[in-house]
Amino acid sequence: MAMNQTGEVTAPAELGNLTQFEYLALGSPLNLADGHARQELTPGQIRIVDELPSLWAESVKRPVEEVEAEARRAYLELLGQRRFPDVPERLLSCYSSSVAMEIFARSLARTTDSIMLVHPTFDNIPDILRGVGLRLEPVEEPVLHGAGIPDDRLRSVGCVFVTTPNNPTGRVLSRSALRRLAARCAEHDVVLTLDTSFRGFDTDAHYDHYEVLEASGCRWVVIEDTGKLWPTLELKIGWLASSENVGLPLAEVYSDILLGVSPLVLSMVRRFAEEAAGGGLADLHRFIATNRATLREHLEGVPDVRFPYPSSRASVELIDLGQRTALDVWTALRRHNVYALPCEKFHWANPVEGSRRLRLALSRPASSVLTAAKALRSVLLAG
Amino acid sequence: MAMNQTGEVTAPAELGNLTQFEYLALGSPLNLADGHARQELTPGQIRIVDELPSLWAESVKRPVEEVEAEARRAYLELLGQRRFPDVPERLLSCYSSSVAMEIFARSLARTTDSIMLVHPTFDNIPDILRGVGLRLEPVEEPVLHGAGIPDDRLRSVGCVFVTTPNNPTGRVLSRSALRRLAARCAEHDVVLTLDTSFRGFDTDAHYDHYEVLEASGCRWVVIEDTGKLWPTLELKIGWLASSENVGLPLAEVYSDILLGVSPLVLSMVRRFAEEAAGGGLADLHRFIATNRATLREHLEGVPDVRFPYPSSRASVELIDLGQRTALDVWTALRRHNVYALPCEKFHWANPVEGSRRLRLALSRPASSVLTAAKALRSVLLAG
Repeated sequence: MAMNQTGEVTAPAELGNLTQFEYLALGSPLNLADGHARQELTPGQIRIVDELPSLWAESVKRPVEEVEAEARRAYLELLGQRRFPDVPERLLSCYSSSVAMEIFARSLARTTDSIMLVHPTFDNIPDILRGVGLRLEPVEEPVLHGAGIPDDRLRSVGCVFVTTPNNPTGRVLSRSALRRLAARCAEHDVVLTLDTSFRGFDTDAHYDHYEVLEASGCRWVVIEDTGKLWPTLELKIGWLASSENVGLPLAEVYSDILLGVSPLVLSMVRRFAEEAAGGGLADLHRFIATNRATLREHLEGVPDVRFPYPSSRASVELIDLGQRTALDVWTALRRHNVYALPCEKFHWANPVEGSRRLRLALSRPASSVLTAAKALRSVLLAG
Repeated sequence: MAMNQTGEVTAPAELGNLTQFEYLALGSPLNLADGHARQELTPGQIRIVDELPSLWAESVKRPVEEVEAEARRAYLELLGQRRFPDVPERLLSCYSSSVAMEIFARSLARTTDSIMLVHPTFDNIPDILRGVGLRLEPVEEPVLHGAGIPDDRLRSVGCVFVTTPNNPTGRVLSRSALRRLAARCAEHDVVLTLDTSFRGFDTDAHYDHYEVLEASGCRWVVIEDTGKLWPTLELKIGWLASSENVGLPLAEVYSDILLGVSPLVLSMVRRFAEEAAGGGLADLHRFIATNRATLREHLEGVPDVRFPYPSSRASVELIDLGQRTALDVWTALRRHNVYALPCEKFHWANPVEGSRRLRLALSRPASSVLTAAKALRSVLLAG
């Protein structure tokens, strides 16, 4: 693995996955590689950090199931959920969305050997699914949002997995598209799993997903993630929600891996969610929109460059590089100490589709995005 | 899963694993079930919690690899390590020891289908190993500490896994026993894996394990865990250390699951380790010894009850119940709101061996241990 943070040139071809590209960037102030939130805390959020010692004292005193229930409610209501499972085993708190993903994958592999997965998407999803022995079938976004998955393809798998909003495209499965997909999964007894890690950024995804899923009667799983939204130094919760009829040993596999998450992190998530509900979320949306505008403005007029998802509100931005290859641009950017992600590996079933695309993270200080945007402009004009 | 915390009687026979017994106890102030540290913070530790906001500010400013290296060094030197891997991919920081275990298990399963595992031990270890498809061979403690594993048995597996100090017995693999085992693993090209989660409690385990392993030339893995030692509200690090020649895709599987742990947790671990090195660890050893003495004194003279591991210094105590069954005693204790662990499931290859044994956690406030000891005495005298 190329965890080399000293700036030596590691041939990108040797890097096995996107996370390994992200390791390279960890030491740089111009790390626009990973999708974790790394902007500065707002004044309201700094006040919550200052409360940590008292949140700790409170967390010690109170029953953990109460602390957990409050955090869940505050976070999910912020995202437009009115209803959600209120039994612990149907809403399992994990250290991260990837741990939730691992538990889901291990559980699913006991009941089926095949899964249909949105294409493109972040590569640790296909990697975890393959890692437990599942065979993957890609489904393209236009199919999901349009005509739908043909019957024979749907019948050939045990599960359909959709990242919504998708990473890196930002595309959101609308309420009506989710309703149609859930109905067809119910009809064919296929589990429907959503990874909604980026939903906090897009109000189009702030509808009651669980209500739609429940109404369909399908067997469903949803992975929620507090980790992309706030710069909480990797303190986060991944929630693994599921229907009563899901038929997967999620709680059993969960109990192999953890007894529970930190009540301090749960309390902190509750306070960040409360602060967000009181105006912080709208501020965050404006902040990301401003960073997106900065990037787009600086690339304006650069020949042969475009933004293929103009309406994306996710905290990452995808750039079509025209005739330039992503690895060339990535390498040139690195000379400016700017780190981005070349997109081959998002296109897990057909990497060449991503070979002329770059992903940049927007959940960064405005000054970093500005510096990176200028560097990218000069690199693109030169190449 | 029986997460019922309302006190209803759930038939223990329905509980699939020890963690599920531990869930039942989470709501009780007399939870002596799980091995997590739940004693009160010491004054020195409270001062560290009060520093969290400034540790947060510092963690934001400093390169994460520096924060990580300092935490590693402070923790491992506290436990008697003089040398340890200093390349990140050979000392991977995980959310917990169980996440490290899952990464190890998934990596190992790519290269072998069989593993020899110490018997008894905490059941999430065999469960995780079985969960990735490995076939398990038990090895009894007296064999490990005495004559050693016969050649034909050693040759039949891809890995030997030892928990040291063991949970629940507290037995420590001595330097010389480790040296012999490592030499034989090297000879037969078998990976040697240690889970040293409880080593902080026993100075007999504070020798340089990595030096012994390296000197043998064997392929080795060690799982370290800060989570059993200090009452840090489940904020902890599990480290996954390995030899250069290990030949397992640990870093690759790691990168499927996480980009990194929280620098705030790393900074906190460093400060707890520094405080421990300055006297806190000796205080902790005295605290556990006092709780152990309380328990033993209160059970003195109870007919047919004994402590099978009199020299254990682990933060858990094992009690032989004579003719009483562990489930009967567990059920009677529960009427006093006291939660312990019946030991069948530790004996993963032969549960009946644990059916008359109970494990009690000692990393609890002294008053809880006292109340639980009195309740246990009255239950044992009645039954």
